[in-house]
Amino acid sequence: MSFERIACVSSESPKAREGMRRLAAALPLVPVAEADVIIALGGDGFLLRTMHEYLHTGLPIYGMNRGSVGFLLNEFTCDNLRERLHSAQLHFLHPLRMTATSIDGERHEALAFNEVALLRSSQQSAHVRVQVNGRQRLANLVCDGVMVATPAGSTAYNLSAHGPIIPLGSNVLALTPVSPFRPRRWNGALLPHTAEVEFEILSPARRPVDASADSTQVRMVTHVTVREDPSLPARILFDPDRSLEERIFNEQFLH
Amino acid sequence: MSFERIACVSSESPKAREGMRRLAAALPLVPVAEADVIIALGGDGFLLRTMHEYLHTGLPIYGMNRGSVGFLLNEFTCDNLRERLHSAQLHFLHPLRMTATSIDGERHEALAFNEVALLRSSQQSAHVRVQVNGRQRLANLVCDGVMVATPAGSTAYNLSAHGPIIPLGSNVLALTPVSPFRPRRWNGALLPHTAEVEFEILSPARRPVDASADSTQVRMVTHVTVREDPSLPARILFDPDRSLEERIFNEQFLH
Amino acid sequence: MSFERIACVSSESPKAREGMRRLAAALPLVPVAEADVIIALGGDGFLLRTMHEYLHTGLPIYGMNRGSVGFLLNEFTCDNLRERLHSAQLHFLHPLRMTATSIDGERHEALAFNEVALLRSSQQSAHVRVQVNGRQRLANLVCDGVMVATPAGSTAYNLSAHGPIIPLGSNVLALTPVSPFRPRRWNGALLPHTAEVEFEILSPARRPVDASADSTQVRMVTHVTVREDPSLPARILFDPDRSLEERIFNEQFLH
Amino acid sequence: MSFERIACVSSESPKAREGMRRLAAALPLVPVAEADVIIALGGDGFLLRTMHEYLHTGLPIYGMNRGSVGFLLNEFTCDNLRERLHSAQLHFLHPLRMTATSIDGERHEALAFNEVALLRSSQQSAHVRVQVNGRQRLANLVCDGVMVATPAGSTAYNLSAHGPIIPLGSNVLALTPVSPFRPRRWNGALLPHTAEVEFEILSPARRPVDASADSTQVRMVTHVTVREDPSLPARILFDPDRSLEERIFNEQFLH
Repeated sequence: MSFERIACVSSESPKAREGMRRLAAALPLVPVAEADVIIALGGDGFLLRTMHEYLHTGLPIYGMNRGSVGFLLNEFTCDNLRERLHSAQLHFLHPLRMTATSIDGERHEALAFNEVALLRSSQQSAHVRVQVNGRQRLANLVCDGVMVATPAGSTAYNLSAHGPIIPLGSNVLALTPVSPFRPRRWNGALLPHTAEVEFEILSPARRPVDASADSTQVRMVTHVTVREDPSLPARILFDPDRSLEERIFNEQFLH
Repeated sequence: MSFERIACVSSESPKAREGMRRLAAALPLVPVAEADVIIALGGDGFLLRTMHEYLHTGLPIYGMNRGSVGFLLNEFTCDNLRERLHSAQLHFLHPLRMTATSIDGERHEALAFNEVALLRSSQQSAHVRVQVNGRQRLANLVCDGVMVATPAGSTAYNLSAHGPIIPLGSNVLALTPVSPFRPRRWNGALLPHTAEVEFEILSPARRPVDASADSTQVRMVTHVTVREDPSLPARILFDPDRSLEERIFNEQFLH
Repeated sequence: MSFERIACVSSESPKAREGMRRLAAALPLVPVAEADVIIALGGDGFLLRTMHEYLHTGLPIYGMNRGSVGFLLNEFTCDNLRERLHSAQLHFLHPLRMTATSIDGERHEALAFNEVALLRSSQQSAHVRVQVNGRQRLANLVCDGVMVATPAGSTAYNLSAHGPIIPLGSNVLALTPVSPFRPRRWNGALLPHTAEVEFEILSPARRPVDASADSTQVRMVTHVTVREDPSLPARILFDPDRSLEERIFNEQFLH
Repeated sequence: MSFERIACVSSESPKAREGMRRLAAALPLVPVAEADVIIALGGDGFLLRTMHEYLHTGLPIYGMNRGSVGFLLNEFTCDNLRERLHSAQLHFLHPLRMTATSIDGERHEALAFNEVALLRSSQQSAHVRVQVNGRQRLANLVCDGVMVATPAGSTAYNLSAHGPIIPLGSNVLALTPVSPFRPRRWNGALLPHTAEVEFEILSPARRPVDASADSTQVRMVTHVTVREDPSLPARILFDPDRSLEERIFNEQFLH
């Protein structure tokens, strides 16, 4: 890959802004429209937003940590940046496509690199009919919520909800309930990554449920379908010693 | 116990109202103020509300199922009601007392027969410092929520959140997280029933959390203490073949 | 596939023997050496043994249930057998190859379609160093045992040990501990199916451990490596309505 | 309590023996038969054996760590021993009484301070009928094993088998399966400490099972009953800063 023309975006935080200034002093930056690669400065949340915002450009993104967590990010430095970009490993992250119908009949589409999650928005528990590839698997999942998570997202909300960590490159997705009440002790499933999952909200007015694809939220949904979208992956760059693959894998052995 | 003077309360549902009419036709009813015993017609939610509403009277409550679930309820019938009341088993259910301070500095008290639960009320995960008997146990629990549940409540929300079912009469309470993110894989604790649990919400403005004692909700809390209140138990009557003890116990073996 | 020449093998059980007699009366059978397909009559254990015994022939195997469980088996019938064979779906099951060194320094090789499992053989817990692809992941896993399971085996011993069910066709394996003592609450990992797992037994004389690949057992091992062997898969036939894929998948939703 | 006459027992290890020599040099020791208190030098296993061996004497036992783990033990020192004994906290640990019938019809009794555990002793999984207080709870538990654990034992084998940690002083016991195959996902129960548990081994010849009460093992059992024996508790002394209660409790918050 050629990384001659470098663009840089940053979050609003002072620390990220200051990183941007240091970067601009160290090497020439171009607008995203003219760039070969995007450098993103901020935390994990900002990198995720950057992936969404610039997905259509097809440009690789190299994140540097100027925020919190930093799971998806490389270390910040202005030195030898071109060399680091050239030696970085490229990961393709395929998003999930959520198609959600809200209670007013409107249809909403959004992509998710981590997870598509449904969550009750009142004190009433959610009642959800779950189908996989057109076949009913659970007639009525009574729960706080339920999600479909990618391998990259498996260490995020999915892990909190007691879902399995999935190595990057696996051809499976996690279907994970949040605080399931019935069926008793149902703790989710691994799905082939080609699966289409349909959630039908039962009694959506009395038991309102919101859906979100990463941070895009749709209020009061009645029907949500989720499937991997193979058409346009995000392209993320990692320093060899900060391989995302290794970090996700390693999460399984932390104690 | 003498059950000469019977009061009856019912939920709003047509089915419960109709039960009330049938009961009134079958035997003389008195106002609660003059009664020895209260019959409650509805579902589990209504029985729980009745327990809260009439706790101060000290009267035993005999629930009959005219609603959903019916975990805490006896079967509905108008026949031989006095005999059934006399042969019923009496359970004492000790509530938890929640003392919650909201972000405006106000103090709120409420009782809970099932659980005192904290839950995030935004997309930001809750950050909670957890102390037991004045000693810090978790400096920062990152989660969707956390609860203290009684044995009677252990089969309710606690079970959804992967908490243990606790036999009635046990001298322990369940401290159970909801979708814990950190510490990784922390799945709660059993506490002596005399324990005082304190939850301190970290960053309560940026990461708002609501607290609830059964259905009494306090918005945006900063500090919540929970402990069993031994002073005034609810007194619940069960037919010998519908023993609450047996039903909670049996939940552990369902499959 | 041509299924002109049919061989049949059966377990020792009277029910399987009787099935064999009925089959021989219904259609001409040939020795395995001359056959296009092998019919196996018995239970799941017998089918697994048949897969091992005839793996080298490369012949497809069609199991019919004359025993217990029957997870891997089709229904028994003598009617329209050729038609059923022709409409059956073919599954390729790749075995794991176990290479185990026993305490006397001898080296043992065996294949496993379900799992390679290590288990303590005394009252002393096993102490196992775990490496994946040459990199140490756990310096000392204190446990009753530990296993690597295939998707096909994920509903067997792996499930008992609280491991995840893995859909057939997934490119992952399960690394699952049996009663892990330390690290506390470590509940295993999903591995890329290309991973090489190495188990080194610490204190093998004082803390003896046996290894088994399906039913092949090696006593008192000191070192065991496990990896998928892509060279020679077993070929198993399933009636369309008894798809192994569907059955394994469905196990995830049973309740 | 008067701790004038001190006896000391030690494990075989050089470190424990050397501790005994140092102790004998520091203060006068008497035989157990003339003692007010027993000092035990070794690891957790030795302390457990000492509790069993001297239970009948009713003497309090003060363990000092000269071995591994040390969960039940105080720190070793010869200084101010009488003062430390006087300021120590006394815990009463009630054992479980196991009554086991072996396949030859013989009856065996043994006590357990940690757990009574059944484990398969062949490659065949155990089939066990489980009754609590004379009532069948599981018609056929298919598993590697199953145990009843005390609060003191809840951090030992019970924890490995994914059972709950139980605070000392709780009036419950843990019934915990080891690698349960069916019922699917059954993960045990909390029992009132007064419960009598009966295990009936199904097909004990074909599916042999051993039972053990702490380290006392009975081979090939057919029937095992377990209940708390309130008659004669062990009396264990802990330094105030090494409270067993606190240590067991704290295990629930380790991460």
